[in-house]
Amino acid sequence: SSNIRLAVIPGDGIGTEVVAEGLKVLDAVGVKVESTHYDLGAARYHATGETLPDSVLAELRGFDAILLGAVGDPSVPPGVLERDLLLRLRFELDHYVNLRPVKLFPGVETPLGKARPEDVDMVVVREGTEGPYAGAGGVLRKGTPHEIATQDSVNTAYGVERVVRYAFEKAAGRERRHLTLVHKTNVLTFAGDLWSRTVKRVAEEYPQVTTDYCHVDAASMFFVSQPQRFDVIVTDNLFGDIITDIGAAIAGGIGLSASGNVNPDRTAPSMFEPVHGSAPDIAGQGKADPSATILSVAMLLDHIGQAEAAARVEQAVADDLVERAGAWAARTTREIGDDIAARVAG
Amino acid sequence: SSNIRLAVIPGDGIGTEVVAEGLKVLDAVGVKVESTHYDLGAARYHATGETLPDSVLAELRGFDAILLGAVGDPSVPPGVLERDLLLRLRFELDHYVNLRPVKLFPGVETPLGKARPEDVDMVVVREGTEGPYAGAGGVLRKGTPHEIATQDSVNTAYGVERVVRYAFEKAAGRERRHLTLVHKTNVLTFAGDLWSRTVKRVAEEYPQVTTDYCHVDAASMFFVSQPQRFDVIVTDNLFGDIITDIGAAIAGGIGLSASGNVNPDRTAPSMFEPVHGSAPDIAGQGKADPSATILSVAMLLDHIGQAEAAARVEQAVADDLVERAGAWAARTTREIGDDIAARVAG
Ligand SMILES: CC(C)[C@H](C(=O)O)[C@@H](O)C(=O)O
Ligand SMILES: CC(C)[C@H](C(=O)O)[C@@H](O)C(=O)O
Repeated sequence: SSNIRLAVIPGDGIGTEVVAEGLKVLDAVGVKVESTHYDLGAARYHATGETLPDSVLAELRGFDAILLGAVGDPSVPPGVLERDLLLRLRFELDHYVNLRPVKLFPGVETPLGKARPEDVDMVVVREGTEGPYAGAGGVLRKGTPHEIATQDSVNTAYGVERVVRYAFEKAAGRERRHLTLVHKTNVLTFAGDLWSRTVKRVAEEYPQVTTDYCHVDAASMFFVSQPQRFDVIVTDNLFGDIITDIGAAIAGGIGLSASGNVNPDRTAPSMFEPVHGSAPDIAGQGKADPSATILSVAMLLDHIGQAEAAARVEQAVADDLVERAGAWAARTTREIGDDIAARVAG
Repeated sequence: SSNIRLAVIPGDGIGTEVVAEGLKVLDAVGVKVESTHYDLGAARYHATGETLPDSVLAELRGFDAILLGAVGDPSVPPGVLERDLLLRLRFELDHYVNLRPVKLFPGVETPLGKARPEDVDMVVVREGTEGPYAGAGGVLRKGTPHEIATQDSVNTAYGVERVVRYAFEKAAGRERRHLTLVHKTNVLTFAGDLWSRTVKRVAEEYPQVTTDYCHVDAASMFFVSQPQRFDVIVTDNLFGDIITDIGAAIAGGIGLSASGNVNPDRTAPSMFEPVHGSAPDIAGQGKADPSATILSVAMLLDHIGQAEAAARVEQAVADDLVERAGAWAARTTREIGDDIAARVAG
């Protein structure tokens, strides 16, 4: 087959460091990749004032997939790179599924004293293109005692149904075949009703999948007290943002959490990235764990039809994590990448 | 001094059981209370179709405080009692501070393997009268493929400033004197900006209080991985709902989480309630832990100027929890109430 055309956006801070290891492992697994680097992020913003030029966005559409490290730097006004680069990519490329596995690998320490790997093994299907992330809202009488600021969550049948369908497909392909809708239907009645009705309707097409519902507050509690309740979760953009960070915490930390911004219809490339940010405080020191990025590379491989290579990469990370548990010496970002690449090449 | 006039709303499910123990302890502590019971909840809804009649609301305004058990029953359409009774009380009585301590008592088991009581000791000041709870929003083309459902968060300078001021006062009175704003300013820019500006402005009046900011996703992670980061948190209605349930989980469960819906200006009575719900699955079995309600009674006492009695009740619960850790036999709701009441009296 022809080469995979990959766009690489290392971004800021530790983004560069972890992406280098992700590419190393991608190389080791033997999938033919032709990669093009894009210097989007703080450096470009300072040099040219640009976050995501239309010409670059147009180019990006031509790739098979995108690997992103992390964006954000203290030198840039807060939120600018997050919104005008990261979120803009998710919206423009119609990444309506933000796929975030929450999985405790054997050997990994979790803050939950009693959790075993089999207790923490779920996938969160977070909506990626609407909800409170729509950017809708406004402000009146700013800076006065009479200021009003609104923030509007926009939910469409079109947007909700497609992500719910994806979640049912995902659940149908897993062993437990269980899907939980997480929302706050007792308070957010308009949006909650649309989500509930959609899950109920699509469920009729998936008799093999059991479903239930959990308020986001209760779900957040259960992530800590009974994570084994969950198999696949479908939820809105903001609730998904919050619960997947709890997920990262219970699965041993943000250094291991992978994600895919997926366009299942393949009308544009999907984008894979670690859940962590650019961590400016430890940037350039070789301290970042590249495992989250490498696991994101596994998700990328799976998405482009390289399931066997994906499984090999994930297994290599899993094996590395088991070994790590017994090891005394901390390794650098590069050393961890080298070790995982060596296993993959095997 | 004259009797405290207390309105009691036991509500549904375990609400009745835990409130009985709360009143028992209130009696034992020797504060003169004259209490009036209100049968609001599922039973009244079924009998008369009423959730919160205007006449009852008017009566409630005349009390010094309200003690609420829990509302909600599977026989009532979901959300009805929550919105038309519980949230309506919070809004009508202008409970703009929803005060939720997150405190790990010695002897209590937490899912966090390594957390010690000194690591989990914070107070969440949740806004209670606006934000995404405003009920604003709507639906167009309902039930069609073109449905749009919106949900609007309404934030006012008036509403944000008063709760932020309360949080600063709270922080100033604690040992660590630290206040964290939790929001999602990088995405919810209009509301986030109002909250940030307000905290920054009020902070100038409190040079003794250190402040920082944490996105709600990161904060949710830190509740699990580094709860010692937090002292006082101020946040919006929905984020507060979510993080206080994580707080309940890390502090040993919802059976111990107390809360106050406070009107600091005393233009209407404040209302104290356990964070847990009506738990219909265990209702009537004497299995519910009344400690959350008894701790809510302590908050109530504190609010009505009975600080010494409040401290005694809290200490009695703390002592009971230490003893519980070594005990073999599980006690019923009533037995726990009896034991704590005996300590308070003794
Ligand atoms: C950086 C931020 C805009 C982003 C989000 O809120 O989606 C991040 O928290 C994430 O989860 O990928
Ligand atoms: C019952 C529900 C409306 C309520 C809320 O969302 O505030 C509850 O979760 C709480 O935290 O007291």
